[in-house]
Amino acid sequence: MQKIDIYDTTLRDGAQSEDISLSVADRLKIATKLDELGIDYIEGGWPGANPADTEFFQEMQNYSFKNAKLSAFGSTHHPNVNAEDDNTLNNIIAAHPNVACIFGKACEVHAKEALRLSPTRNLEIIKNSVAYLKQNLSEVFFDAEHFFDGLKHNAEYTLSTLKAAHESGADVLVLCDTNGGTMPHEVSEAVKTVKERLPNAKIGIHAHNDCEMAVANSLAAVEMGATQVQGTINGVGERCGNANLISVIPCLNLKYKNKYQTISAENLALLRATSIYVSEVCNISPFSRQAFVGLSAFAHKGGIHVSAVNRNSSLYEHIDPNLIGNRQRVLLTEFAGRSNIVFLAKRFGFHLDKDEPVVKGLLNELKIKSSQGYDFAAAEASIELLILRKLARCGVREFFKLKHFRVLESKMSANSLPLSEASVVLEVEGIEEHTAASGLGPINALDNALRKALINFYPRLNEMRLVDFKVRVLNASENSTGSGSFVRVLIESADQNNKWVTVGVSYNIIEASWQALADSVIYKLYKDEYEHRQQVK
Amino acid sequence: MQKIDIYDTTLRDGAQSEDISLSVADRLKIATKLDELGIDYIEGGWPGANPADTEFFQEMQNYSFKNAKLSAFGSTHHPNVNAEDDNTLNNIIAAHPNVACIFGKACEVHAKEALRLSPTRNLEIIKNSVAYLKQNLSEVFFDAEHFFDGLKHNAEYTLSTLKAAHESGADVLVLCDTNGGTMPHEVSEAVKTVKERLPNAKIGIHAHNDCEMAVANSLAAVEMGATQVQGTINGVGERCGNANLISVIPCLNLKYKNKYQTISAENLALLRATSIYVSEVCNISPFSRQAFVGLSAFAHKGGIHVSAVNRNSSLYEHIDPNLIGNRQRVLLTEFAGRSNIVFLAKRFGFHLDKDEPVVKGLLNELKIKSSQGYDFAAAEASIELLILRKLARCGVREFFKLKHFRVLESKMSANSLPLSEASVVLEVEGIEEHTAASGLGPINALDNALRKALINFYPRLNEMRLVDFKVRVLNASENSTGSGSFVRVLIESADQNNKWVTVGVSYNIIEASWQALADSVIYKLYKDEYEHRQQVK
Repeated sequence: MQKIDIYDTTLRDGAQSEDISLSVADRLKIATKLDELGIDYIEGGWPGANPADTEFFQEMQNYSFKNAKLSAFGSTHHPNVNAEDDNTLNNIIAAHPNVACIFGKACEVHAKEALRLSPTRNLEIIKNSVAYLKQNLSEVFFDAEHFFDGLKHNAEYTLSTLKAAHESGADVLVLCDTNGGTMPHEVSEAVKTVKERLPNAKIGIHAHNDCEMAVANSLAAVEMGATQVQGTINGVGERCGNANLISVIPCLNLKYKNKYQTISAENLALLRATSIYVSEVCNISPFSRQAFVGLSAFAHKGGIHVSAVNRNSSLYEHIDPNLIGNRQRVLLTEFAGRSNIVFLAKRFGFHLDKDEPVVKGLLNELKIKSSQGYDFAAAEASIELLILRKLARCGVREFFKLKHFRVLESKMSANSLPLSEASVVLEVEGIEEHTAASGLGPINALDNALRKALINFYPRLNEMRLVDFKVRVLNASENSTGSGSFVRVLIESADQNNKWVTVGVSYNIIEASWQALADSVIYKLYKDEYEHRQQVK
Repeated sequence: MQKIDIYDTTLRDGAQSEDISLSVADRLKIATKLDELGIDYIEGGWPGANPADTEFFQEMQNYSFKNAKLSAFGSTHHPNVNAEDDNTLNNIIAAHPNVACIFGKACEVHAKEALRLSPTRNLEIIKNSVAYLKQNLSEVFFDAEHFFDGLKHNAEYTLSTLKAAHESGADVLVLCDTNGGTMPHEVSEAVKTVKERLPNAKIGIHAHNDCEMAVANSLAAVEMGATQVQGTINGVGERCGNANLISVIPCLNLKYKNKYQTISAENLALLRATSIYVSEVCNISPFSRQAFVGLSAFAHKGGIHVSAVNRNSSLYEHIDPNLIGNRQRVLLTEFAGRSNIVFLAKRFGFHLDKDEPVVKGLLNELKIKSSQGYDFAAAEASIELLILRKLARCGVREFFKLKHFRVLESKMSANSLPLSEASVVLEVEGIEEHTAASGLGPINALDNALRKALINFYPRLNEMRLVDFKVRVLNASENSTGSGSFVRVLIESADQNNKWVTVGVSYNIIEASWQALADSVIYKLYKDEYEHRQQVK
C-alpha cells in the first residue's frame, strides 16, 4: 500500500477565496481540526506577507500538533539580493515551521514577463533559495508554479527548473496547475515525463478547479506516481478553488482497492464533521450536493429508490456513508410516506403504528409546511415541537399566548442609526403581561421584549441565549419583487447543556423571526420540564 | 473534428435534486434556453410518471425547437405484459417526442434483487422494449442502468444487455454510472471494452458526481470513443448531481485542440448566461466558485497576481473569459493596492495616476468599509458609487436627501400576519416629500415608500425592479447574541438593460436594507444621466 501525503493549504490558498476571511483565532481552530483528521502537512500561511500570517506562526509556537507538520509558504528569493539576505526566506526560517514550501517560476514566459528575469538567473534563484532553506529546515518543498503551462511552452526549460530544485535538495517537487486549465490526460503525460527525467524525485500535485478537474487531476497524478496531494477542505480557494481534499481522501482510500492510503480508516469517519466545521469557521454554507459529505449525498427521494434502498442499501449507494461520517437520509418531501413519520417519532421516544390516524395527519402537516419552506432538516427542534404538539399525550403545555406585538424603527436623520423598540402583550399563566424593550435592530428588540415578559414566570430562561441567526430568501424569482419574497429564519439557541435550532417562514422577516424565537423559548421550557419529570420518575 | 452530442436531463434527472421543484412553466423556460444554447437533445421528463411530466409533453406540442430534439424518458416494459401493451412505453409514444430514452437493468444483481427477474427474462424485456419503440420513433437510446457496477459483478452478462439493446435497434448505448462511484480510469477501461465488443455501436455516458468525478468521467468516456454526453446544467441532480454540462461543453470545445466539437463557438458565449438563468428558474443561488462561469472564476485577489494580470491576462487565465460569456474581475479586499483602484476607475472612464492623493484616500475608505463587512466584490454598483462620490469631478449629484423614516410592524393577534408600514421624509430637488406606504414585510414597505416619494421627480424609476435580496449575518460567533449581530444585505436590481448589486451593512437589518435600497435607486438615476450625457456628446 502506497502512502500518499496530504498537504492542506486551506489557511493560505483557501483563504484567497473571494468570500473567506480568516482571523488568527479561526486559523488556529481549523489547524487543530485538520491535525485531528490526520492531515500530514498543514500550511499556515506566508510569514511576513501580512500581520495575520506572521501572528499565526507566532501563536503556533505555543501549540503542538499530534500528527501534522506545520508548513510555511513563501517564494524564491528576490532577484536583487542573495538568498541569505532575503526577507522572504528569512521570515520563513524565523517562523519556525517544520517544513517550508516555496514557489518558483517553472515557466520561461512567466520568468521573463512576470518577473522580468533571464531564464538562467531564474534557475540560479531556485537553486540558491532551496539550498539556503535546506540548511535551516529539515524539509523543503518546491512549488513549480505554472508547471503545466511551462511544459507546453518550453518543456526543456520547465524540466530544468525541477532539476535545479531537486539537485539543491528539495524533498518534493510539486507540479502546480496554477491557472487550473489542464486536463487529466495532460497531467498523466506530464507526471510520466517528470518521473522519467527525475526517477528519484518525490512528486506532488497542486491542482486548481477552473475546469472542474482539480480532484481528477490530483488522482491522475497519483496514478502516475505522485505521492503528495495539495488541496483545501471543501475545495475553497482563489477563483474556482483548489483540489477538494474532502473528495481526494476518500477516493484514494476507498476507490483503488487498497493501493493507496492517506488518513486512517478511523479518521476517515471524521471527514463529514471536518468539512462542516471548516465551512462554519469560514462562514460559508455547506454545499448540500458536495461529493461524499453533502447533506444530499446519500439522500433518497424517488419512491422506487427508497423501497430498493430499504431492501439493499449497496444497490443504490457507492459506499457505506458511515465510512466517511455521513448517513443515509430518506427525504420528507411530497414523496414522503407514513413509514418516514414512524421512523422520526421513534427517534423522539414515541412508538407509533403506521396505521394510526395521527400519523397521517402529521404527514399532511409536514408536507404542507415543507412546501412552504420550513426546513425541518435543519431545524429539528421545530419538527420535534410539531410532532409533540400533534401527539398531545406527551403534554406540551402552552407556556404563553401571544395577544399582540409591535415593532417600531425610527431613523431620525440621514446619519443617525435607527432606534428599535418592540412591545408585546402575552398571556402567561393566566396573567396579561404588557411590556416593551429596545434592542440592536428589530429582531433583537422583539427577543428582548419576549424574554422580559416571561422571565418572572420562567427564570430559567436566563440560562438560554441565541448563538446563531440565519436568514435565507426563498423564491426570489425574476418576476417577483425580491424584497417581497418569502424568508426563512433559522435560530440556534443554547443553554449550559444543549443546542437547538428552530425555524420560521413568512414573507415578513419580523414574523418569521417571531416564529423561530417563540419556538426556541418554548423548546427550552418544554425540555426543562421533560427532564425534570424524568428525574422525578 | 468529432461532433459530440450533448443530451440534457436537467428537466428530469436534475429535477430530482433535493432543493429543486419545477413547474411546467419553469420547464418550458429552461427548455427554450437550452435550445438557444444549441443543446442537441433535451429530455423533458417521464410521460405518465406524474401529471407535470405528462403536461409538459402536451404543452410541447405547441412549441418547436430551433435545433434540439425532444426526448422522453422511461423504463423497459413491465415483466407481466408485452411491450405492445405496456403503459410506460405507450405513454412515451403518446407524448410524441423525437427520441425515446429508456433505462434497463445492465447489472445481473440489480435485475435479480431490485426487479426479481431472471437474467434471461431481463434480456428479453430489453430487446422487446427497444424494438417496439423503434417501430414508432426514429431514435431510441438505451440507458444501461448500473452499467459500471454490473461490469465489475458479471461483465459478460452486462455486455449481453448492451448487445440485446444494440441488436434490437438502439441508436445509442448509454453507459450509466448510476451510483456515481466509478473512477475515470475505470470508465476508460469500460468504454474500451464496449468498443471492442460492439465496434459499430454509438456510445453515450451518463455520469453522477458522488466522487466529484462526473465531468472527468464524461471526458474519459469521450476520449475512448463515446459520442454522446448526458448531464445537467450546473450539475444539479439527485444526491450529488449529474455531470455538469456547463463544464463538459467548454472542456470538449476548448481543451482538446479542436478534436471535439459540441455547441458552436458563437453559442459558447451564452454559457454563463444560461447557467445563471437555469439557477434562477430552479431558485438556487449561482455558485460563485463554479468552473468557467462562476462569479469568482476569473476574479483576481492577491496583489502580485493583479499586477501581472494587468501586464498579460493569459499569464493567469487558462482561457479568455469572454469565450464563455464570463469576464475578468479584480477584487477589492484587504490586499487591495493602489493599482486595483486605478484599474477600477479606468473601467468607469476615469484615468487616474497611482500617486494621486485621491487614490490613497479611496483605498483607505475601501479598506475600512471592507473590514466592516461591506462586500464590494459582490456589490459592484455600491463600489462604483463610492468611487464616483469621492472623485466628485464626475458629477454624481445628490438625487435626494433622507430627513427621516419610520417602519412599524403590528401583529394584532397570534394568528394574524403583521401589518407593515413605512413613512419617509425626503428632500428632493429642494422640495420636502413626506409619504407613506405599506408592503409585504418591513423592507418591502420601506422600498415602496421610497419609490413613492421619488416617482414624480424621476419617472424612470418605474423601469426598475428588485430581482434579488440576500441577507447574511456577519460575526455570529458563539459569545455574541446572534440576533444582535451585524447583517449584510445585498440587493440586486434590474431595468430593461442592466442588472446591478448594492450593499448595506448594519447591526439593524432595516438600516442595512435602507443603505442598499438607496444606493440601488441612486445608481439607476446616475446611470441613466450618464448614458444620456454620452448620447448628447
